[in-house]
Amino acid sequence: MSNYSAPLRDMQFVMRDLAGLDEVTRLPGNEDVTPDLVDAILEEADKFAAGVLAPLNRSGDQHGARWHDGEVTTAPGWKEAYRQFAESGWTAIACDPQHGGQGLPKLVSTAVMEMWKSANMAFSLCPMLTTGAIEALLLCGSDAQKAMYLPKMVAGEWTGTMNLTEPQAGSDLAAVRTRAEPQADGSYRLFGQKIFITYGEHDLTDNIVHLVLARLPDAPEGVKGISLFVVPKYLVDAGGNLGAHNDVRCVSIEHKLGIHASPTCVLAFGDQGGATGTLVGEPNRGLEYMFIMMNEARFAVGMEGLALSERAYQHALQYARERVQGTEAGVRGGPKVSIIRHPDVRRMLMSMKSQTEAMRALAYVVAAETDKAHRHADAQQRAHSQVFVDLMIPVVKGWLTENAFEIASTGVQVHGGMGFIEETGAAQHLRDARITSIYEGTTAIQANDLIGRKIARDGGAAIGAVVRQMGAVETELGVIGDEPFVAIRRALGSGIAAVEEAVAYILATYDRDIKAASVGAVPFLRLLGIVAGGWQLARAALAARRRLEAGEGEADFYRAKIVSARFYADHVMAQAPGLAYTVVNGAAGALELDDTQF
Amino acid sequence: MSNYSAPLRDMQFVMRDLAGLDEVTRLPGNEDVTPDLVDAILEEADKFAAGVLAPLNRSGDQHGARWHDGEVTTAPGWKEAYRQFAESGWTAIACDPQHGGQGLPKLVSTAVMEMWKSANMAFSLCPMLTTGAIEALLLCGSDAQKAMYLPKMVAGEWTGTMNLTEPQAGSDLAAVRTRAEPQADGSYRLFGQKIFITYGEHDLTDNIVHLVLARLPDAPEGVKGISLFVVPKYLVDAGGNLGAHNDVRCVSIEHKLGIHASPTCVLAFGDQGGATGTLVGEPNRGLEYMFIMMNEARFAVGMEGLALSERAYQHALQYARERVQGTEAGVRGGPKVSIIRHPDVRRMLMSMKSQTEAMRALAYVVAAETDKAHRHADAQQRAHSQVFVDLMIPVVKGWLTENAFEIASTGVQVHGGMGFIEETGAAQHLRDARITSIYEGTTAIQANDLIGRKIARDGGAAIGAVVRQMGAVETELGVIGDEPFVAIRRALGSGIAAVEEAVAYILATYDRDIKAASVGAVPFLRLLGIVAGGWQLARAALAARRRLEAGEGEADFYRAKIVSARFYADHVMAQAPGLAYTVVNGAAGALELDDTQF
Repeated sequence: MSNYSAPLRDMQFVMRDLAGLDEVTRLPGNEDVTPDLVDAILEEADKFAAGVLAPLNRSGDQHGARWHDGEVTTAPGWKEAYRQFAESGWTAIACDPQHGGQGLPKLVSTAVMEMWKSANMAFSLCPMLTTGAIEALLLCGSDAQKAMYLPKMVAGEWTGTMNLTEPQAGSDLAAVRTRAEPQADGSYRLFGQKIFITYGEHDLTDNIVHLVLARLPDAPEGVKGISLFVVPKYLVDAGGNLGAHNDVRCVSIEHKLGIHASPTCVLAFGDQGGATGTLVGEPNRGLEYMFIMMNEARFAVGMEGLALSERAYQHALQYARERVQGTEAGVRGGPKVSIIRHPDVRRMLMSMKSQTEAMRALAYVVAAETDKAHRHADAQQRAHSQVFVDLMIPVVKGWLTENAFEIASTGVQVHGGMGFIEETGAAQHLRDARITSIYEGTTAIQANDLIGRKIARDGGAAIGAVVRQMGAVETELGVIGDEPFVAIRRALGSGIAAVEEAVAYILATYDRDIKAASVGAVPFLRLLGIVAGGWQLARAALAARRRLEAGEGEADFYRAKIVSARFYADHVMAQAPGLAYTVVNGAAGALELDDTQF
Repeated sequence: MSNYSAPLRDMQFVMRDLAGLDEVTRLPGNEDVTPDLVDAILEEADKFAAGVLAPLNRSGDQHGARWHDGEVTTAPGWKEAYRQFAESGWTAIACDPQHGGQGLPKLVSTAVMEMWKSANMAFSLCPMLTTGAIEALLLCGSDAQKAMYLPKMVAGEWTGTMNLTEPQAGSDLAAVRTRAEPQADGSYRLFGQKIFITYGEHDLTDNIVHLVLARLPDAPEGVKGISLFVVPKYLVDAGGNLGAHNDVRCVSIEHKLGIHASPTCVLAFGDQGGATGTLVGEPNRGLEYMFIMMNEARFAVGMEGLALSERAYQHALQYARERVQGTEAGVRGGPKVSIIRHPDVRRMLMSMKSQTEAMRALAYVVAAETDKAHRHADAQQRAHSQVFVDLMIPVVKGWLTENAFEIASTGVQVHGGMGFIEETGAAQHLRDARITSIYEGTTAIQANDLIGRKIARDGGAAIGAVVRQMGAVETELGVIGDEPFVAIRRALGSGIAAVEEAVAYILATYDRDIKAASVGAVPFLRLLGIVAGGWQLARAALAARRRLEAGEGEADFYRAKIVSARFYADHVMAQAPGLAYTVVNGAAGALELDDTQF
């Protein structure tokens, strides 16, 4: 089994030197968030993640959540861990103080979230979904709904779920069929089946607050006829007391490749006369409300990609240090060495390490911009930050999760044959990671959002601004003659050119031939992710160099930052021109066959 | 659940138009192998694979092999399927007719092997290991050993295993500690523990013939002190009758990520006084004998990569045709369509299809060259073919297996959320594929073999000859002005240049700085695989064009071949220059950190 400890040093570096923690803590409303407080929170979170959640990760995977007669039992230790989690106030850190939360900046809660997800992704899904449901009620709920549900949810006494998917309505929510019938008392009765409901049923809390997409009787077809309802597992009276079991039942849970400890439920609404719910917000605007929360949810899933990459890296590194096998390359008959001495193992570890650092830097920068978008005093800056966030969300979701699977697979490879044995634990990260590029919108959905809504729609304005920021870093690199910086600059320069070439193609093609543009969407998302990550690592290398020149301690850490950026330039950024080539030239081959020719 | 049917049309095309089946059947000793016979064999094999083996793939995965008190029970249906497999003569098709085999060319047995592995990889490992053990006894065994074991093994009545790995001796076989003590009667007693022994214990046959690496008391240290022994599960008397249970026990089986139905055993030799065995060949030459069989074994594992890719492709294609979700891109409010109509799903399917075809073409060409290396009348041609085979074996092993995992993952992605649910079956291919780039030598071991023994050692002569063959295809493409061929030629040209650049670096670096060269080994293997695959698809496109021009039927199939080659050029070959960049520039970043800086 592997231990986990939060990469506090890298988190702090990224927060301070790349994401502008100082600026974030100066934003209106963040005045109480001092650097010392941030450090204290991260240290406490690390203790909880490493001490309570991480030890349950493997046992949770082995035992899994279990269904019996409509009830779901979580894995041993889960209930106690959840109780501690809630009692320690972790459910509330990012929530609005008005409803009992601590209102920490997203930059800080993001680092904390990374820890939960590294330590135990299956566990982390429960508070993550609850946060999403809280957000939905906060934004769109009535005062009565807020009063009834929010205090309990923020305190972690009740959890929340999101009920979107149905068997015929996965990526295409326009096909949702669950229906809601208005009742004389202003409530609704819901009828239908929802699938893939994460923590849709469990034994961690007394009640579960389901947010459910459904259609009203007179609703128009398609996406504009979907409304949002809140449907508690147990009905709640005006005094906040739990009443009868609502007509919603968990009819089964899925047998999945990974996240075994997270129950993925099939929920039946209305088999016994209708599940009682109330409308959230206005009729037929349910999907719109979902879209408001989408950035948040997609960012969180992207963080799963980062978190699992970090965990897989720590796991592989520990093994590479301990496992003795073979002699050093080129040394015949020499002593046996730890496999970390072998060049290809180093290559694999550097690949895991540098990409994880690149992903963390990009994600935290996006988190900080989200804080600015919400709280900055200057409206223009808020708008500017929001545009950046909107552009980068599909990249954070798509690129980080695709990477995580590759990185977890590299972690298995570092273990050799032991990686294939479940007891080792390396394979679990791989299995857990595989869902992240699927749920909350597949990579293709992210990529089409990216090239369509985020690039074509504004004629390339947002991406153009980012490319200019990247260009400024390239210029800054250009004055440094040291070899690693020359390599980093060369790679960033060719990465920027690749992005520009691909963007020009997308802008020229999207309206004229959406299919051709769409073939390049996923390769483009990957390209932009790679180059954005390289941009952040280049910034990290520059910051590290400044710290080194100023003689500000920890030279080993800062030198390693420069090496990471250099490795990434030569091994990862090197893929950028090829991806641009595919974006620009790849449509014909992909679209030419008749369906029958496959 | 998915069905499997062998891709007979593509197999036949590759065998005839790319691998030179005609030439292979004209080789000395192959005179009886007519085209009709080949077709009949492939059709029968398809029936067996699709009808008997494929239906057991999922149930075998779910049930797994089970250990109790030293005995292993295979999954339901396994015994009966194995009995039919042996009775139908499938165990013997590639074996020497002198010992009861059918002596079919490797080109033909390769196509048949692909089917077993596509249909049920976990099953296929048992005959595969047996074939390896047969080969070892054929090459190095005494007449008495051959007489005692080969007829039963060729007939499938007994199976064989290879016992190499020990806990401290995985990739580094020099560390083997199992010892063999000579007895007065000329036999040996073996003591030690072997791990990761595929089908080391099972209930399919009456006896199991273990081939075991061990050290004699006076053996030198390291790789030159390892001998090979044959140790049957049940002792065999001179009349071929089974006697007492030998002192070898299966003490446990592994709980693995995939190939659940294939028991991976820990075998204890000599807990009760010593396991009786006989020496195979001469003392201290065991590892050398293993190396003789290595091409065969590595090729077979490479075929697992191809086979699982084909299976994953068929699985995903079937789902993409059936699953209705969303409307056609750019058509608002249009009818719902099968997801095969969505551009990114087409991209994924084309990626799976074109790479699978490229791998099949390369593998079958290598199989045909193996036939020539064994049987060609001209010694120079035999030597020439052997050099090509030796060069390409690590590529077939490393590249096909790394691809398989990516392709199986793409197959999961095509399924969306359903791909993560085990009942769908797509995830099994992913889990099964993950072992293939580890066992029988990890990708790094293949890659270091490739750049060291296969490229640096002969000063680039063998790879130079291949590059010249590729160049001839590029020239041939150059006279065709059709757009797809222009794209294919451009990609092949830049692929060849990338290989040349990387080879020049390896030749200049290997002796001077083996670590630097070794950092580029895996990226180079990937590069050479991609370009070799593109070379074969370019040949396929040229052959298809000739058939089309000659009006030789099946225009849809031949046109699709050209589209495959074109897609591959724009989406896969496009990666070649970036990989060469990494080979040439990637060492510094990978090697610079101290161990403590990770």
